[in-house]
Amino acid sequence: MIINWKPNRDSDKSLYDQIYNYIINQISNGDWYIDSRLPSERKLAEAMEVNRSTISNVLDELKSEGVLISRGSKGTFVANNTWSILASTSQPNWKKYLDQGIHKPNQTTIQMINKYEFEDGMIRLGTGEISTDLFPTEYVNEIMSNITLNSLNYEEPLGYKPLREAICKYLSKFDIELKPEQVLIVSGSLQALSLISIGLLQPGSTVFVEKPSYLKSLHIFQSAGMKLKEILMDEDGIDLNDLRKKLNKSGTNMLYTIPTFHNPTGIVMNESKRKQLMEIIKEFQLPVIEDDAYADLWFSKAPPKPLKSMDDSGSVLYTGTLSKSFSPGLRIGWIAGSESVIERLGDIKMQTDYGSSSISQLIAFEWFDKGYHERYQIGLKSSLKSKCKLVLELLSTHFSDIAKWQKPNGGFYIWVTLKKDINMFKLFEDALKSKLLINPGYIYDFNENNSIRLSIAYATGSELEYGIRKLSEIIRKYY
Amino acid sequence: MIINWKPNRDSDKSLYDQIYNYIINQISNGDWYIDSRLPSERKLAEAMEVNRSTISNVLDELKSEGVLISRGSKGTFVANNTWSILASTSQPNWKKYLDQGIHKPNQTTIQMINKYEFEDGMIRLGTGEISTDLFPTEYVNEIMSNITLNSLNYEEPLGYKPLREAICKYLSKFDIELKPEQVLIVSGSLQALSLISIGLLQPGSTVFVEKPSYLKSLHIFQSAGMKLKEILMDEDGIDLNDLRKKLNKSGTNMLYTIPTFHNPTGIVMNESKRKQLMEIIKEFQLPVIEDDAYADLWFSKAPPKPLKSMDDSGSVLYTGTLSKSFSPGLRIGWIAGSESVIERLGDIKMQTDYGSSSISQLIAFEWFDKGYHERYQIGLKSSLKSKCKLVLELLSTHFSDIAKWQKPNGGFYIWVTLKKDINMFKLFEDALKSKLLINPGYIYDFNENNSIRLSIAYATGSELEYGIRKLSEIIRKYY
Repeated sequence: MIINWKPNRDSDKSLYDQIYNYIINQISNGDWYIDSRLPSERKLAEAMEVNRSTISNVLDELKSEGVLISRGSKGTFVANNTWSILASTSQPNWKKYLDQGIHKPNQTTIQMINKYEFEDGMIRLGTGEISTDLFPTEYVNEIMSNITLNSLNYEEPLGYKPLREAICKYLSKFDIELKPEQVLIVSGSLQALSLISIGLLQPGSTVFVEKPSYLKSLHIFQSAGMKLKEILMDEDGIDLNDLRKKLNKSGTNMLYTIPTFHNPTGIVMNESKRKQLMEIIKEFQLPVIEDDAYADLWFSKAPPKPLKSMDDSGSVLYTGTLSKSFSPGLRIGWIAGSESVIERLGDIKMQTDYGSSSISQLIAFEWFDKGYHERYQIGLKSSLKSKCKLVLELLSTHFSDIAKWQKPNGGFYIWVTLKKDINMFKLFEDALKSKLLINPGYIYDFNENNSIRLSIAYATGSELEYGIRKLSEIIRKYY
Repeated sequence: MIINWKPNRDSDKSLYDQIYNYIINQISNGDWYIDSRLPSERKLAEAMEVNRSTISNVLDELKSEGVLISRGSKGTFVANNTWSILASTSQPNWKKYLDQGIHKPNQTTIQMINKYEFEDGMIRLGTGEISTDLFPTEYVNEIMSNITLNSLNYEEPLGYKPLREAICKYLSKFDIELKPEQVLIVSGSLQALSLISIGLLQPGSTVFVEKPSYLKSLHIFQSAGMKLKEILMDEDGIDLNDLRKKLNKSGTNMLYTIPTFHNPTGIVMNESKRKQLMEIIKEFQLPVIEDDAYADLWFSKAPPKPLKSMDDSGSVLYTGTLSKSFSPGLRIGWIAGSESVIERLGDIKMQTDYGSSSISQLIAFEWFDKGYHERYQIGLKSSLKSKCKLVLELLSTHFSDIAKWQKPNGGFYIWVTLKKDINMFKLFEDALKSKLLINPGYIYDFNENNSIRLSIAYATGSELEYGIRKLSEIIRKYY
């Protein structure tokens, strides 16, 4: 429940009456549904910029009328029998609908991150996006002014064919050889996961994920009834012994892995481990989702080739995206795999959203075809490399006694683990009060942990300098 | 299984060897999965442009090796025990994964329509898109050249705020008054349905739909475990007695309706029926999805105002789209409803695809904000009106003795019902042979019916003239 309304102080009506009418109205039009909890009196007073006593008086009146109900320390709620009192007795019980929905809501922390990202003056230390000042303005506007549109209809089920061809060509750079029929264009690689969850797995199936993993910050698979099972990681990625042990014990499975510049830890799986992993995959006939969002973004030395390049059994569903190496706002990613699987996923995508934005696909095609992608990566990688150097310096100045971390060789993330147990949600909230938005490690894990995912990509140099110093100060208060 | 490979006649290898290797390769790399059925020998021969006997010889060899297996009249299949013979014994059993997936594949006819739409020379008599020659080239390129992008990041969970504000302003024209917090931007209104299915309903819930309904051509709700229950229609839309009767007997429900220029029948619900329907909705506290994709597209007289404009109980989830009144390739639609519901749907959308294309949202904003939308509708409606007149003339020339239909007052569709029962799938296939792509009525219904959804929107005047005459000829062969 977000309050973005204030009484009008120039109105003829009293503040009391205005607030009373506002609340009645919010309830009767269904914006505040039956059984939902109101913000605290303090928060309401802050949001409406009135005295707490005014709020208190209105709420008391509404409670006495049976519109609201107090449940002691749990707070104040919209009453169940509201509809006998209000004029409208006909609102659907939306609360019931929201509660019964198959897809789970985001974790509170993630909902908060999604919202606070758009608050002015917020320093975003965890955001996995390229900062605005690195945006290829010139290239994009060149593309935009060179495009002439004569139509803009739906594309083929797998997406705009010239784009699929361009992606095949681009992927051959990573020794991945594909036909356009093996590539489906998706609205960001997140959508690829969503399609896999409803297209290839059944409720009760197990998806193995690294511990920690970006995937755990989402509910995609769990909402479709799958279980996520954690596989331990060491400093080179997945612990293969742990994987083998867990595979021996389970039925229908899939593995989700980010072998290159892992999200959130930044870890790269080395080449020999990749080969061993491919052996296990073949031995167990295990389908794998390889998420390769950060493949282009190495600082000094290219990472080993993707698993997909070694895949001679059609076991790997390979996802990529332009969100990290160009622009998330384009919402263009891809998934590559066996034709039969890609065809089905494309069919389901048609039933879900009739394909991705044609204009985004056209821009993405030009981006690859005219060589912008390759040219842009050169500057981008060098900027990320120097921002990474800066962050590592700041960390050793402000964090070396209270945390440890691994130096990344590419990608966006540094996984900073505090040496002492503290309440990480409280830290998240305290940081917010200082206008610092951080991504606490627990959103990528099923257990509490002491880590923070720092991103080198989004915040500017001066924001990083201020933010990392300030964050260290906040943490020290817990020590 | 689509074959788009041919042996190379200039190769040193024999056609036989090339085809043999191709099939082995398709199977071992997983493109043809275990237990999948091969096309017929005739179709393989046609696709590969070789004699049928060559195909026959290769298949016999592969059967004798146990790679393929013949199941009599059912056809030839990839054998189960293939992997003991082939070099690769490690392909995941993709067939099992495809079979177990939660989301159902499209109906065969719809898959065929989705594919044949992209075949050259096809006359598309059923396509619900505006034809390319009506595309607002000048307006769009004006927008494109006036946009300067300085960044292109993710948008807020509900979508680009200026666009949501522009949509509120646009909807006030229909007497729908909303705040931007009540509007979620989606990738076409199909996605709105997808979000509702996983966000607000539970397996076993019932969704009432008109008989026939566009919704039946999709598997959105059924794949999420909901049942669709049919409500009869008369010439003014939903049969309210039938609705009331069925509501009395059921638990958690939702109603999906297209009151204005219904898809596929073109019917408009009159004003008094809309009011009565709203009474029923309130009486039963029934949540409703009102799909208003065609609201702008009236020929001579504006249709009654949407249900949402009469909704004082927050019961109506209202969906709209730019796909019909501007361009489907933009993939921009919206859903409006109570704040709490919209907030949750936005949250789930974030978990599904992180929001719609920012560039599409930006273009859509300019489209509304600069008045292009209103200006374009004037010409579009007049073109559709004259195309409708043409189609009605063609129908009375070629169909008056064999079919009946209702004259539409707007939208895209004329629902042509044949007077005699014929095999409609066979008609669909026969029409394809003459390069006519039609949308048979049964894809919008759970039973056979004798109807065809004609679209006035896509085919050009001369295509319509040829196509409707030709279609009449084909149908007469069945009489």
